[in-house]
Amino acid sequence: MTTTSAPLTGVVPPLLTPLTAEGDIDLPSLERLVGHLLEGGVDGIFALGSSGEIAFWDDQRRADVLEAVTGTVAGQVPVIAGVIDMQTDRVIQHVRAAERFDLAGYVATAPFYAITGPEEIDTHFRAIAAATDRPLWAYDLPVCVHTKLAPAQLLRLGTDGVIAGVKDSSGDDVAFRLLAGANRAAGSPLKLLSGHEVVVDGAYLSGADGSVPGLGNVDPAGYARMHRAAQAGDWEQVRAEQDRLAQLFEIVFQPTGKVGPAAGVGAFKTALRELGIFSTNTMARPMSPIEGDAVGRIRAILEQTGLLSGAEGGSGTAAGVAGA
Amino acid sequence: MTTTSAPLTGVVPPLLTPLTAEGDIDLPSLERLVGHLLEGGVDGIFALGSSGEIAFWDDQRRADVLEAVTGTVAGQVPVIAGVIDMQTDRVIQHVRAAERFDLAGYVATAPFYAITGPEEIDTHFRAIAAATDRPLWAYDLPVCVHTKLAPAQLLRLGTDGVIAGVKDSSGDDVAFRLLAGANRAAGSPLKLLSGHEVVVDGAYLSGADGSVPGLGNVDPAGYARMHRAAQAGDWEQVRAEQDRLAQLFEIVFQPTGKVGPAAGVGAFKTALRELGIFSTNTMARPMSPIEGDAVGRIRAILEQTGLLSGAEGGSGTAAGVAGA
Amino acid sequence: MTTTSAPLTGVVPPLLTPLTAEGDIDLPSLERLVGHLLEGGVDGIFALGSSGEIAFWDDQRRADVLEAVTGTVAGQVPVIAGVIDMQTDRVIQHVRAAERFDLAGYVATAPFYAITGPEEIDTHFRAIAAATDRPLWAYDLPVCVHTKLAPAQLLRLGTDGVIAGVKDSSGDDVAFRLLAGANRAAGSPLKLLSGHEVVVDGAYLSGADGSVPGLGNVDPAGYARMHRAAQAGDWEQVRAEQDRLAQLFEIVFQPTGKVGPAAGVGAFKTALRELGIFSTNTMARPMSPIEGDAVGRIRAILEQTGLLSGAEGGSGTAAGVAGA
Amino acid sequence: MTTTSAPLTGVVPPLLTPLTAEGDIDLPSLERLVGHLLEGGVDGIFALGSSGEIAFWDDQRRADVLEAVTGTVAGQVPVIAGVIDMQTDRVIQHVRAAERFDLAGYVATAPFYAITGPEEIDTHFRAIAAATDRPLWAYDLPVCVHTKLAPAQLLRLGTDGVIAGVKDSSGDDVAFRLLAGANRAAGSPLKLLSGHEVVVDGAYLSGADGSVPGLGNVDPAGYARMHRAAQAGDWEQVRAEQDRLAQLFEIVFQPTGKVGPAAGVGAFKTALRELGIFSTNTMARPMSPIEGDAVGRIRAILEQTGLLSGAEGGSGTAAGVAGA
Repeated sequence: MTTTSAPLTGVVPPLLTPLTAEGDIDLPSLERLVGHLLEGGVDGIFALGSSGEIAFWDDQRRADVLEAVTGTVAGQVPVIAGVIDMQTDRVIQHVRAAERFDLAGYVATAPFYAITGPEEIDTHFRAIAAATDRPLWAYDLPVCVHTKLAPAQLLRLGTDGVIAGVKDSSGDDVAFRLLAGANRAAGSPLKLLSGHEVVVDGAYLSGADGSVPGLGNVDPAGYARMHRAAQAGDWEQVRAEQDRLAQLFEIVFQPTGKVGPAAGVGAFKTALRELGIFSTNTMARPMSPIEGDAVGRIRAILEQTGLLSGAEGGSGTAAGVAGA
Repeated sequence: MTTTSAPLTGVVPPLLTPLTAEGDIDLPSLERLVGHLLEGGVDGIFALGSSGEIAFWDDQRRADVLEAVTGTVAGQVPVIAGVIDMQTDRVIQHVRAAERFDLAGYVATAPFYAITGPEEIDTHFRAIAAATDRPLWAYDLPVCVHTKLAPAQLLRLGTDGVIAGVKDSSGDDVAFRLLAGANRAAGSPLKLLSGHEVVVDGAYLSGADGSVPGLGNVDPAGYARMHRAAQAGDWEQVRAEQDRLAQLFEIVFQPTGKVGPAAGVGAFKTALRELGIFSTNTMARPMSPIEGDAVGRIRAILEQTGLLSGAEGGSGTAAGVAGA
Repeated sequence: MTTTSAPLTGVVPPLLTPLTAEGDIDLPSLERLVGHLLEGGVDGIFALGSSGEIAFWDDQRRADVLEAVTGTVAGQVPVIAGVIDMQTDRVIQHVRAAERFDLAGYVATAPFYAITGPEEIDTHFRAIAAATDRPLWAYDLPVCVHTKLAPAQLLRLGTDGVIAGVKDSSGDDVAFRLLAGANRAAGSPLKLLSGHEVVVDGAYLSGADGSVPGLGNVDPAGYARMHRAAQAGDWEQVRAEQDRLAQLFEIVFQPTGKVGPAAGVGAFKTALRELGIFSTNTMARPMSPIEGDAVGRIRAILEQTGLLSGAEGGSGTAAGVAGA
Repeated sequence: MTTTSAPLTGVVPPLLTPLTAEGDIDLPSLERLVGHLLEGGVDGIFALGSSGEIAFWDDQRRADVLEAVTGTVAGQVPVIAGVIDMQTDRVIQHVRAAERFDLAGYVATAPFYAITGPEEIDTHFRAIAAATDRPLWAYDLPVCVHTKLAPAQLLRLGTDGVIAGVKDSSGDDVAFRLLAGANRAAGSPLKLLSGHEVVVDGAYLSGADGSVPGLGNVDPAGYARMHRAAQAGDWEQVRAEQDRLAQLFEIVFQPTGKVGPAAGVGAFKTALRELGIFSTNTMARPMSPIEGDAVGRIRAILEQTGLLSGAEGGSGTAAGVAGA
């Protein structure tokens, strides 16, 4: 088991957490998912991110997920872990609880729930970094955190060695471009990963070092091909992959009456069930799984984008695929 | 030690958490604060609310606060406790951890961080209520939670016996009025408490059963007098108290360069230090305390509103006051 | 024809603009509406406000409305007029166009569409005031303008004689209380009118001088009774009227699939048609009128709140009523 | 004079409106600006956009601007014109007023100020289109309009022949990608232009047909080179131009204490004055021009990005340059 200390770049999907119908961690499905990602050619795995439903777990479940993920990955690629919580002390408590696992770094957001300003955000990241020798990533996610991390602040934290990089899910491509330019001008202290599945191509042009695509759970090979093409400067290939992946992303708009992860993560889980990788599409409490017509629409998109042939997969076939 | 099972109404301040300069719970200051509230005539105490800096504590600190508060209050008035966290399972974990304390109920928000819709909010409150025999209060706080609880949903949860009442800090007086009217029409299944310190008078006209004023830590007697006047229908007295308390509330606008609790809770803590009740105005990490000219401006407001004479109190005098 | 120069207080409804089925100004309905308001005991009329659908009119229509309204009111009560537009020069153009009418003042918002800061807002109001001898009111309406006018800025504009008062539709009762207190402390340079129909009682406690209730088109007598009760300090009467009016306000929630004025103003127009005062509930282009089941639900609420008996009114009967 | 009827693509800067110190249209500066754009190789000009300060003009000024611009451009490239106003009828009034000018189309936003829903937005665009034979563009600008136009609605309006294209300034690159994909799948009824100066490269990968960059007033040649490189598939060139233009864009962050167009358009005007193209950097009332240290910082950026040598340009030199 080896933990890389080199900076993590490339495709690092935020790992979904497969559940049994009873809501427990579904280890066989997790093994299939990890195998699916490694075969797809991902460069790392981000456990306990928003797509991993981290917000919904208590501390024991977080530990169980890290145990299961690091055991399954077994050092084949680096694993970084979310230590997301409302404020500094709880985040540090998560860091301490995770130190016993084979992890290549931690991912933390700005404080949330209680409103904080730039001074507190600065203190927050510095205190977390001081609590561990592992690299710290800043997760810019205003849709959940309701604060946009300022490019100038991120760059200063990078220059000071507090953070190793940024996972940008801000949806603000203008700010990302400006951050990427300023980072380059400062000697690239930060690694920049984009979390927006359907515009990773533009992020590469801006200067992204890789992506953290939730949709990468469903089609890791597509994101890996796009990354290699971007590294090679083959932008027509980048764009073609991105166009296909944008089409695949339409699965998240199929559920009706659902918002947030119940729709998005729910669609990913449903797709993975239809692909025979997950046994269920069960969601963390208080969310309910996607049912009804939306499942058929998700299958249709999987077929249109070449991930599923008409005869393949479907509910209940996971065991067979697992046995293959 | 007796726990009331009658529904909690009247003045129920969200208790501040006094800290030593090192950041530990300051028990002598806590005792003085509780004494100050009881002498002021409050009807209950809300521990571990936003004003109590709950977002900043790890689990051990939450337990220590409840231990200290229930021990100090010792059944003289009911204590309710915040069980605030991102999603259902962690909230229930907080409920279980708090069951050993002498508490008259719990206060929970809608899920936050991960976006949820009405269906999940409903499941969330029902799951929490199912985990305890104690009354559950819904805390409507969009400034932190980024979801406004809909009056119709709150009323249904009340009618179904899921929640005992609402602590409204939504800042939406229109919705509060409509909720109060609908609640009355349904036989008043809900108790309604307002969390907006400077417009409690209007909330009483709308039908509030009491208040949860953060500023009530500083001037509990003022809120208690306003409540009694409202019960007696002496609205001129209600308005006069509210006008004076609104003037006192100006202390939260004195800090410069601070937002959220660093400004608001920070101003309350600073005022209590100047009143000789707290030993410090230390804030939970990553916040820093209010310093400089703002302290003088806060003192001036305390003098203008009759809480402090020119000669009284001030930094470093807490021990002397405590000895009085 | 006489124009009062005394500051306007009391009940000043934002006048609806009745339309024929073809979309023209419906003069007979307008006469009935003005008669309804004057009989109800209003203290003034606010023409060309948001409830008057001002945003939807071209310049000619604005002039036609002012012509019709001032002609119909004929000096019986003061009329103030909205001069609402994106930026300063257009607002001043509206002021100049309105100078020939018998008006007691103008109502302007902060600049909108193009984002402006405090400096521009200040320049804006001062430039408008410099363009007329008539009193200027600041209209605080963040739901449309997307800027909240700061209490300190309003007070300074009042102290400098730039504005005569504020029509507060901000929905921020905390800020309104603080403004009212600061205004009193400064010798009351501003008159303060609340635009939130269902919490005018709380606004009176805070220090409001009156109200600008859209719902006052439907039930002017209710608002007039509430105002007189507030002046007399009869708060139980204030609250009873407000509770009934809050119940009446539920008409705006009856339309389905409509937002903004299509729902709110649409409900007021529909209610007035059912009351026999309007001939149609036609809305300005591009809005469509309320139809279907919502009309029945609106009628039911009119009956529950005592404005309509089961046998009365209804579509098509306006002519009959007008002839009465 | 010839008006193209072919769909407009490529670089179409939103033309600034140069003003004299007294606030009048500065015709000599306008001529220099138009010359600067045509020499730079732009494909069209967008008059009366947000960058043209349209929100601040009264009707006469709008007409004067169109007169001046179409006269100066004299058919050398197509000119499209903003007809931006709050609601449908005023927009149509602007269309009628503009029909006498040599224009290749109109640009309209969704209704604003009064909140409207999808039904009203649909009616709005159809009514405008029905009022003219010229092509209509939808302008998606939530920062001013506070409504995001839904990709599905835009596509339907395109398929129905109501709109010819979209000027996207939504800042939502995810939605833009999905719109571009859906548009292609539908046979490309819409032309798509991006209004975000610093991420036009990503927009080209997504499928943009061109750009509407405010910054293109300052450096039209840069945007023209980027467009030609994108058409040729030379993405390294695209990215290099975009990186330089992103660096140039930093001029908008130099003013202190200004927001919105006072900062952004103000920085463009100041840069053009320093380049000797504008005689002043005067802004429309109620905005004030950029002064003080920010001017020096803007000059420094112009030098760093190769638009200005140390010895060149500067306030007061416009006449000299004009004479060159």
